[in-house]
Amino acid sequence: MDTITLAHGSGGKLTHDLIEKLFLKELSNPTLKELADSGVVNIPKGKIAFSIDSFVVKPLFFPGGDIGKLAICGTVNDLAVVGSTPQHIACAIIAEEGLKMDILRKVTRSIKVAAKAAGVKVITGDMKVVAKGECDGLFVITAGVGVAKNPSRISIDRVKPGDKIILSGTVGDHGIAVLEARERLGFQASVKSDCAPLNGLIDSIITKGVKFMRDPTRGGLATTLNEMVKGAGFGIEIDEGKVPVSGSVKAACELLGFDPLYIANEGKIVVVVASKDADRVLKTMRRHRYGKDAAIIGEVVTGHRGKVYSKTSIGGMRMLTMLTGAQLPRIC
Amino acid sequence: MDTITLAHGSGGKLTHDLIEKLFLKELSNPTLKELADSGVVNIPKGKIAFSIDSFVVKPLFFPGGDIGKLAICGTVNDLAVVGSTPQHIACAIIAEEGLKMDILRKVTRSIKVAAKAAGVKVITGDMKVVAKGECDGLFVITAGVGVAKNPSRISIDRVKPGDKIILSGTVGDHGIAVLEARERLGFQASVKSDCAPLNGLIDSIITKGVKFMRDPTRGGLATTLNEMVKGAGFGIEIDEGKVPVSGSVKAACELLGFDPLYIANEGKIVVVVASKDADRVLKTMRRHRYGKDAAIIGEVVTGHRGKVYSKTSIGGMRMLTMLTGAQLPRIC
Repeated sequence: MDTITLAHGSGGKLTHDLIEKLFLKELSNPTLKELADSGVVNIPKGKIAFSIDSFVVKPLFFPGGDIGKLAICGTVNDLAVVGSTPQHIACAIIAEEGLKMDILRKVTRSIKVAAKAAGVKVITGDMKVVAKGECDGLFVITAGVGVAKNPSRISIDRVKPGDKIILSGTVGDHGIAVLEARERLGFQASVKSDCAPLNGLIDSIITKGVKFMRDPTRGGLATTLNEMVKGAGFGIEIDEGKVPVSGSVKAACELLGFDPLYIANEGKIVVVVASKDADRVLKTMRRHRYGKDAAIIGEVVTGHRGKVYSKTSIGGMRMLTMLTGAQLPRIC
Repeated sequence: MDTITLAHGSGGKLTHDLIEKLFLKELSNPTLKELADSGVVNIPKGKIAFSIDSFVVKPLFFPGGDIGKLAICGTVNDLAVVGSTPQHIACAIIAEEGLKMDILRKVTRSIKVAAKAAGVKVITGDMKVVAKGECDGLFVITAGVGVAKNPSRISIDRVKPGDKIILSGTVGDHGIAVLEARERLGFQASVKSDCAPLNGLIDSIITKGVKFMRDPTRGGLATTLNEMVKGAGFGIEIDEGKVPVSGSVKAACELLGFDPLYIANEGKIVVVVASKDADRVLKTMRRHRYGKDAAIIGEVVTGHRGKVYSKTSIGGMRMLTMLTGAQLPRIC
């Protein structure tokens, strides 16, 4: 059969065939193979991190990635930024009747490759099909379990005025890449999504004094910085000129009237470290393939509590609020 | 705002407002309140069970439950049948632009009530919104983590010919209830979904010799029994006359030409026990509110390996295969 039918989501014979011929074949591991109602795995005593994300990106394939890679990297990164080692992934698929089987196959292979790169295993899953017009092609939902590093001391409570804010690389690549693919804007210099698993990069710095991390996805860097100061006794000041932005993202943003600070990223982290540790962490990050453009972009300040300010290129200061409205729907 | 807009899924201000005013208000607990990228919780050393399920049931509300209750109970039951104590839930929502806020509120309250009844906490979540026409109202995806009971010995490998098959109650209630609500069939005696958390019932029997369990959801009892014998060195024989079916489900199935053995359940378990333990387990189940109609419906046999046979009411034998086709789409 070359398209997905409602029967593929019935839980009956066709669901089982699909699981065996596609999912088990591509993603096989002893736990998944059991096809039990839950995957059962060993966990060392201590803390676990647990996360879930739905991916509804449109289009399903874009330069630098696709919904499968995104679903793995997104959940891996959510587990890694809280200071855990991502290990187990649960993957649910909601497909629209009539979806080409080839697309599901391609996405599953991409899940396989991304999971391998990130060092995680898909140990359990679910497959649902809805009728034509009841969803748009394919949604992928991943949940993940990570084992918290011991001692894991990633907490916003450790952040203090004077701490430095490091960003791991250029902003806006993912959002612009997806937008370009969706709207077929045909920019001269095509932008690639930065979609990547960041657990390796995080591993390289986590023992070097990292106090807090977050990945600036939907809502962009500006929203993430606002999440960090929300309800806190400090503010954040960044220097806009120090935020890395690639030439093509900058050009696309100027053309479309977007602010790169609000565009989604899928392979970046914001790290808070004590001032004394900043250079060491920065250097380490720059040695990693996903951190080579890392930069210190600002610091935690005592002034304007709960707010984020940015020094603009012409020397002024502007307040960065959270993203309001929906700049780019279905970006992840 | 009384409807969901794309901006509610942007990850920006409106997403945060919705999280605070609805999800945190209804589901609050210390881990969820952190609003971190992952929920971090303590786990004792040993095994965990990990499960995920998407819920796309249509309509969202039906006699005996709704998509929120279903999403909690479904995942709780998947964790419990493998012999774990369900503890932590991750909940992702995909909403269609224009969804009434009241519906989301009602579903969230239902999640709250169901989680409390099952003794689990929603510790992390995600909210996405897609444009009108890109999904059908509301999909809810839950993942769960359970702590495996020690020693947990729930395994199909322990099942042997001679073992008894116990079913915890009537079949077909969920599927018929949803179908009736969807198609407004207006049966005289309305059928209520059996949607329920089964961890309490399972707790009451798990130390009494239970070898294997499964919850017969999509695909119904017949499909679940087939999953149990698949690739195994034994078969299963059931006595159709012993499978509890309520009068109204029986009547609806006769009218519509459905076989109750293939209709979905959301509050039932199939349990395999050694013959010597069967009566004790049955009695214990019958004392529980979700097991009062429990019955021994058949046994594991050496003959017809990998197959399920059923004694019909007129004394014949028929082979029960897995569900083929899609009898009732969007039943869960």
